[in-house]
Amino acid sequence: MSVAHLFLKACFRQPTPRRPVWMMRQAGRYLPEYLATRKRAGDFLTLCKTPEMACEVTLQPIDILGVDAAILFSDILVVPEAMGMELAFETGEGPKFAAPIRSRADIDKLADPDPEVELRYVMDAIRLIRKELNGRAPLIGFTGAPWTLATYMVEGGGSKNFALIKKMAYADPQAMHRLLERVTDAVVRYLSAQVAAGAQALQIFDTWGGILSKADFLEFSLPYIARIVQGVPRVTPQGERVPVIVFVKGGGQWLEAIAGTGCDVMGLDWTVDLAEAHALVGDRVALQGNLDPCALYAPVDVIARRTRAMKAAFGSGPGHIVNLGHGILPDIPVAHARAFVQAAQEQG
Amino acid sequence: MSVAHLFLKACFRQPTPRRPVWMMRQAGRYLPEYLATRKRAGDFLTLCKTPEMACEVTLQPIDILGVDAAILFSDILVVPEAMGMELAFETGEGPKFAAPIRSRADIDKLADPDPEVELRYVMDAIRLIRKELNGRAPLIGFTGAPWTLATYMVEGGGSKNFALIKKMAYADPQAMHRLLERVTDAVVRYLSAQVAAGAQALQIFDTWGGILSKADFLEFSLPYIARIVQGVPRVTPQGERVPVIVFVKGGGQWLEAIAGTGCDVMGLDWTVDLAEAHALVGDRVALQGNLDPCALYAPVDVIARRTRAMKAAFGSGPGHIVNLGHGILPDIPVAHARAFVQAAQEQG
Repeated sequence: MSVAHLFLKACFRQPTPRRPVWMMRQAGRYLPEYLATRKRAGDFLTLCKTPEMACEVTLQPIDILGVDAAILFSDILVVPEAMGMELAFETGEGPKFAAPIRSRADIDKLADPDPEVELRYVMDAIRLIRKELNGRAPLIGFTGAPWTLATYMVEGGGSKNFALIKKMAYADPQAMHRLLERVTDAVVRYLSAQVAAGAQALQIFDTWGGILSKADFLEFSLPYIARIVQGVPRVTPQGERVPVIVFVKGGGQWLEAIAGTGCDVMGLDWTVDLAEAHALVGDRVALQGNLDPCALYAPVDVIARRTRAMKAAFGSGPGHIVNLGHGILPDIPVAHARAFVQAAQEQG
Repeated sequence: MSVAHLFLKACFRQPTPRRPVWMMRQAGRYLPEYLATRKRAGDFLTLCKTPEMACEVTLQPIDILGVDAAILFSDILVVPEAMGMELAFETGEGPKFAAPIRSRADIDKLADPDPEVELRYVMDAIRLIRKELNGRAPLIGFTGAPWTLATYMVEGGGSKNFALIKKMAYADPQAMHRLLERVTDAVVRYLSAQVAAGAQALQIFDTWGGILSKADFLEFSLPYIARIVQGVPRVTPQGERVPVIVFVKGGGQWLEAIAGTGCDVMGLDWTVDLAEAHALVGDRVALQGNLDPCALYAPVDVIARRTRAMKAAFGSGPGHIVNLGHGILPDIPVAHARAFVQAAQEQG
């Protein structure tokens, strides 16, 4: 069975001879080969916007670690940028928008991007990656969830307390919903274009869903995720089913609600008890995760033991895609990432 | 009925004519009166270590906002400092330990402080506060949970990924447990001295319990919290019952386990659905919380509406202490804090 089939079958909870594994941020700074390409690119956005280089780093973890799926190398913030927001990645500071959203007028000024025009470089990268992968592994496309994208658009970058986005959401919910609707529309078009270009699975990252109360998550984040799950094509132009993965960091208390969006796979952060999650929703969706990314700081024997314990917690049924509970950290030794992948790929 | 009785009765799930309210970090930078005292003190640690000034800021929210309980003004890191770790609060950077714990030898060098000697200034503050309060409101003493204190002791200060403490916990769990045992012993003596000095309730803050997986929380944090709950005096020298409150930020997935420590009250962060939590554990413990601290950025009518909705979510039974889901933020207008307190104190 090809590895492509292994990952996709697990997404649909079909039996597989072993569990597939990939890592969030697997094309990243812990790999010397990534750092070399990144240095050649000069800056992060150039790396995202040059299909040949985006393709190169997307394939690196496949070749170096033998993971069972490739994920498009890009950044969730290219969508707000394509909507007209000037974006910069300052060294050591993370992403910054030059003019964050602060009013209804700012929302009305946003553009409705055509993914094959303003985000053409992403679609070109997907087409090139599919060609270079040549069936070795399936390609996952992705997006940020509308709430997460809106958070960056309103805060202007990273945030400690999320005061600005919450002030907007609580004080002017109508404006908040207007912004979320605009972003959702752009995301549905973006993911539809990704599938047309060759993405074989889609992941929605809600990095900041977990900063909300349940009532606010159900008002400001989940309905827009559901609209995306229900709005994107679930089949490739060649007629293969496209699974949708929803990952809400900090969403462990709302698994029932997330499973109800109609997604095929739920990504879990490491705070979720995998046995309890499987018991709760395992018949409806596959589960992806969820080793603590910091476990990869431990010696390789501890990494292997903890990875096996995580697999044992899920249990023996189909529908488990092994992954970390969040992105791999930049200072993890490659040998430690390899120990994780190897333990994940053991039979059982 | 005195306000003292109101708060303590609610902690023991006894009926009260209205719900009591206080705010985590209520003696803090959002109050101009606090800033004035802090300026007079010169630096944060001097404020903690001068009983007259600690007393002054402890009483400010009682006088200014009319909250129903006072909480000792201090910092959780005075315990590791009393164990021999040099501590500094650098402006805008938060707390820093000059020589963080990095080895078993560092753990063995820690002292076993006598609270009436090395932490005498805390006990003097408690005695003075009780005198100045004169029965107007009960006084809550507090500590950091051992896992949270160990996190600061090993990381040396704040952290993004908690790489160092997790590396110790995962790679050398025996050393980790040795450190946690030493801290637990110091904390039990510290809280016992607080009760002897006049604290009428105790809160254990596990700020960083939520960064762990459930298995790791059950191994490295919860047993030490339970040992404290079971090790401290549950009655004052005058024979009044002393309730113990356990607050684990990010602990919403583990409420059953936390309630099982034998605590009287469980503090909830704002991500927890109060109705679900009450249904789950409400017969065993009282619940404290849990408005999103960022809700206080909204206009006062929204604050009142959200506070009433939170009270309605808990429902009509006894045992609800209204609070925020985390500390009040420094840039909240005092009028907004007042709107929260007033809505909390409405009948119903």
